[in-house]
Amino acid sequence: MTAPARRGRPRSEDADGRILEAARELLFARGYDQFVMDEAAVRAGVAKTTLYRRWPTKDHLLVALVAKIQDEVPVDDTGDIRGDLNVYLTAIVTGLNRMRRVGRTGDHDDRSAGVIAELVAAAARHPDVGEAVRGLFARRNTLVLALLDRARERGALRAGTSSTVLFDQLAGALYYRLLVTGEPIDAAYVEELVDHALAGAGATPRPERT
Amino acid sequence: MTAPARRGRPRSEDADGRILEAARELLFARGYDQFVMDEAAVRAGVAKTTLYRRWPTKDHLLVALVAKIQDEVPVDDTGDIRGDLNVYLTAIVTGLNRMRRVGRTGDHDDRSAGVIAELVAAAARHPDVGEAVRGLFARRNTLVLALLDRARERGALRAGTSSTVLFDQLAGALYYRLLVTGEPIDAAYVEELVDHALAGAGATPRPERT
Repeated sequence: MTAPARRGRPRSEDADGRILEAARELLFARGYDQFVMDEAAVRAGVAKTTLYRRWPTKDHLLVALVAKIQDEVPVDDTGDIRGDLNVYLTAIVTGLNRMRRVGRTGDHDDRSAGVIAELVAAAARHPDVGEAVRGLFARRNTLVLALLDRARERGALRAGTSSTVLFDQLAGALYYRLLVTGEPIDAAYVEELVDHALAGAGATPRPERT
Repeated sequence: MTAPARRGRPRSEDADGRILEAARELLFARGYDQFVMDEAAVRAGVAKTTLYRRWPTKDHLLVALVAKIQDEVPVDDTGDIRGDLNVYLTAIVTGLNRMRRVGRTGDHDDRSAGVIAELVAAAARHPDVGEAVRGLFARRNTLVLALLDRARERGALRAGTSSTVLFDQLAGALYYRLLVTGEPIDAAYVEELVDHALAGAGATPRPERT
């Protein structure tokens, strides 16, 4: 959610927020192929020049939108690393599953990665989009890596566990299913994945359910 | 490598092999953007109609080429699951690293996923390409999943280890670096990843090097 415009807030920030909200509505209504920059400007009530000066292509704008959506997912540290990872990764999966279906017809067997795959390709094709995407993930992932570091420091993960490798195993499995194999991802899968990965990091096994 | 044409081999299979070899040469010489179907037909010495009847678009043809390249990587079972995974995944990484640089200028800081990302997007965009890509990975991954199953059955992995989840963590980490974060992937990373993932599966730790 964007906070309502406040007095004293810079006008450019207001415009950015309005553009991103307009972009979100348009993307979820239309999908990637039918997303048109000029319509985003009209819907946001800004001049086209304002939009294009800030984000020169739809890929640049959509990367900024994905950054905003990711930033809405909190990284909480309750002291229970298993629980915290489950909550965080399930929220990420929910967002990815919603995003992959954007603009696609309702066939529930549709295994396409949709707009996520388009952004991956845009990142590969355009160096500046690539830099933006990698910067976005680096910034977000720093929060989760710090969560894993703290868990290791308090002894909840084995000394010597690499937070980076552990996080690659977790996030990687999700994106692999999304982008490559098309296998479904749900909360039960996230739980199994976290259990497997944490066992490798020497975490105390999850208590049996009674 | 394609076996030389033999007497009695169906002509269409000869043509397929020649087309795929021509496509490989063209792709590695030119890259994805500059890859032109008609040139592949000329180079292979087949009629354009033969090419398009078999593979209607360049994405279809390139998925078949990736399948062929993947099939050239053997999945060996020597009874040493750690060693076998390291050999297999390092071979996959070598192929991916070569492929991502295809047709790109030699900047060694280039972190683009290149043609791999284009194929991921093509798979997301076109249902039949998606089906071909997912079928290709499912077929290949079956071999590695069987390798993991056998390791579990002989007690090298903890009973109850899910081969699927374990493999998702391994392959996923590699593709996540390739497609999302752009972090480098080399043999040392593969070794660390395999160690982490196998620790989660209860494998005997790697002996310290002396």
